[in-house]
Amino acid sequence: MRIKVNENFEKLNKNYLFSEISARVSEFRAKNPETEVISLGIGDVTRPLARCVAREMELAARGMSESEHFHGYGDVRGLLSLRESVAKRYLRRGVSLDTNEIFINDGAKSDLGNLCDILGENVALICDPVYPVYVDSSIISGREIRFLRADEENGFLPSPKNLPSQAFVIYLCSPNNPTGATFTCEMLKLWVDFALKSGSLIIFDSAYESYICDEGLPHSIFEIEGAKGCAIEVCSLSKTAGFTGVRCGWTIVPKDLCAKAAGGAKSVSLNSLWARRQATKFNGASYISQRGAIAALSPLGELENGENIEYYMENARILREFLLARGFFVVGGEHAPYLWFKCPTREGGSWQFFDYLLENAGVVGTPGVGFGSAGEGYFRFSSFASRENILTAIERLKSLNIRG
Amino acid sequence: MRIKVNENFEKLNKNYLFSEISARVSEFRAKNPETEVISLGIGDVTRPLARCVAREMELAARGMSESEHFHGYGDVRGLLSLRESVAKRYLRRGVSLDTNEIFINDGAKSDLGNLCDILGENVALICDPVYPVYVDSSIISGREIRFLRADEENGFLPSPKNLPSQAFVIYLCSPNNPTGATFTCEMLKLWVDFALKSGSLIIFDSAYESYICDEGLPHSIFEIEGAKGCAIEVCSLSKTAGFTGVRCGWTIVPKDLCAKAAGGAKSVSLNSLWARRQATKFNGASYISQRGAIAALSPLGELENGENIEYYMENARILREFLLARGFFVVGGEHAPYLWFKCPTREGGSWQFFDYLLENAGVVGTPGVGFGSAGEGYFRFSSFASRENILTAIERLKSLNIRG
Repeated sequence: MRIKVNENFEKLNKNYLFSEISARVSEFRAKNPETEVISLGIGDVTRPLARCVAREMELAARGMSESEHFHGYGDVRGLLSLRESVAKRYLRRGVSLDTNEIFINDGAKSDLGNLCDILGENVALICDPVYPVYVDSSIISGREIRFLRADEENGFLPSPKNLPSQAFVIYLCSPNNPTGATFTCEMLKLWVDFALKSGSLIIFDSAYESYICDEGLPHSIFEIEGAKGCAIEVCSLSKTAGFTGVRCGWTIVPKDLCAKAAGGAKSVSLNSLWARRQATKFNGASYISQRGAIAALSPLGELENGENIEYYMENARILREFLLARGFFVVGGEHAPYLWFKCPTREGGSWQFFDYLLENAGVVGTPGVGFGSAGEGYFRFSSFASRENILTAIERLKSLNIRG
Repeated sequence: MRIKVNENFEKLNKNYLFSEISARVSEFRAKNPETEVISLGIGDVTRPLARCVAREMELAARGMSESEHFHGYGDVRGLLSLRESVAKRYLRRGVSLDTNEIFINDGAKSDLGNLCDILGENVALICDPVYPVYVDSSIISGREIRFLRADEENGFLPSPKNLPSQAFVIYLCSPNNPTGATFTCEMLKLWVDFALKSGSLIIFDSAYESYICDEGLPHSIFEIEGAKGCAIEVCSLSKTAGFTGVRCGWTIVPKDLCAKAAGGAKSVSLNSLWARRQATKFNGASYISQRGAIAALSPLGELENGENIEYYMENARILREFLLARGFFVVGGEHAPYLWFKCPTREGGSWQFFDYLLENAGVVGTPGVGFGSAGEGYFRFSSFASRENILTAIERLKSLNIRG
């Protein structure tokens, strides 16, 4: 063909992190069929859905074969009753939202990527290490990226203090994937103030907010004064309610959010742009998934989901205690299902430690460098696993006598 | 904010067609609360899902709350068993597909829009009148558009015969939305030959293929020799199985499809580009919807869906017979749920006829001009309605004594 393709794809990292992990694990399994491999690697939940959520989706599915309960195309923003449930959830933390500011999505990833559609040629400001979607979607859409180093010195929570007062599109994730580090209100306030002053937009990924154990920490950027003038928040039920296969979440685009167009002569509402984008290129999350989401946000759903989250967080506590006792530098695992720690030796880096753990303990983690160059020498464990696997993994690590 | 937005949104048509219809209908209802408005307007199905499809989704939902049947993140291309069902469906029409050429989507609209992500700055060749998504997504991504007029002379099925041999991204839809006109194999062969000769890519929207009643007409562009070297096909279960609320379909990107990059020095596989795009910006259709799709493609599902399609097509036959008896010029309604006909007078155009029907008969259709300027003076009826409503609408139209 003679048509042109988007050549920005050439600039992407060739090997997707989890494909590379999967390839190495397959090779190991082929050579060591007797070893049961324990995965503390990919960030997918392992516990089944809350009963009340599954039950609601059963009812919704059954209703779809009855004339009086059938649902076809829905509102571009999603079911009103679901948006009302989301609004109520935010209100409990003091955040008041109009239902028109809430857009039901099919998970955080799509919207985090697709938001590029409504933005122009801005510089993306992205922490390193980071969830690869912010970087890859920015590259695909031809954006310039400026990286901001997260490291031991800043506790893996960079601040905007040395940045030029330039208008960036800033990606923040708290509790963080991959590091598990979580912003305090004070730290997040610095970012909101910077964004307001510089005219930047913050895209805030709050997919792990349910794992916060200290109620003083912010679950939403909109808990910070002024954020409605500078931030979009993308959230998902993937980790809150085990929806990685169900696909439903929400994106908040405040009505107050306006950017300049036509060389500054015109003010454009980002809420309207996003509504138009979604009406053109999206037909909503599945009606059945949305009904499940309503159940997940109900008091019973929150109770049942909370039990799953406690289970994962007990896993995190056990892993964290072990790593700290062995002298590792660790962040995360307190308000997030991820633990981020320094590999025993920095000589060979993250992938060397990955191979060492796989070959000697049959334990799979995620090499920190897979999340960006500043992640070199670090490693991520996920607490999405059975208790039994967590305990077995620790026994195996103990027998290696590894120390930080 | 000082960040830049995508100013291409400014170039979009301000009023989305169906929002404008909805506004006029609301106004009419407020003034005429006693009239029962009959909608033959928006293209959404009205009949509930096949029992076996709903039942399968119930089972899938229930299983999600059991450890042994829980499903989290899936393959970026979708469930293998669903892709195998899709491959079998194509094989019945002589089209052999590798399961890696099939990408499960959440409906046709997302992929028809998102395919722009992998393409460069090409000229889009789009028929007029047309489904607005091709136009709007091309405008949003800053593409130049060349329109190709569909009219009575070409039976609303334009051919490529007078086109320059330039590499276009060509959008084709057959059976067509909005006109219902359907390409024969010979006509489609002209397009494939043109694309191969000119180096163009065809994006073929086959969302209405199940409504084809003459088995000699092509259901897929891949029934045409050479199409695997020049076409991507986007299909959906929205109209085939009533999935407008369930959200599931598929996109076929042949492995043979290669475009030039780096000034012609490099060959790039569109299948790989699309896989990378989807891995970055999509996390798959809902597992429950995919299980429903497997049931929809099963022999029992096809039987039950076939009954719904027959019901709609009987509606189409009744509408078509009435319009023809009244002397209207009509296309569609034979292999598609849509009927496209010439308004009684071209003086005032489509919207005038819309208002006339609404105000005098309480019947809602879709103004042809809403699908492009070449649709001015035409009108679309949809057969997605109850038989009772179709018959009542015809009685009301008869009493107006309208004639073509």
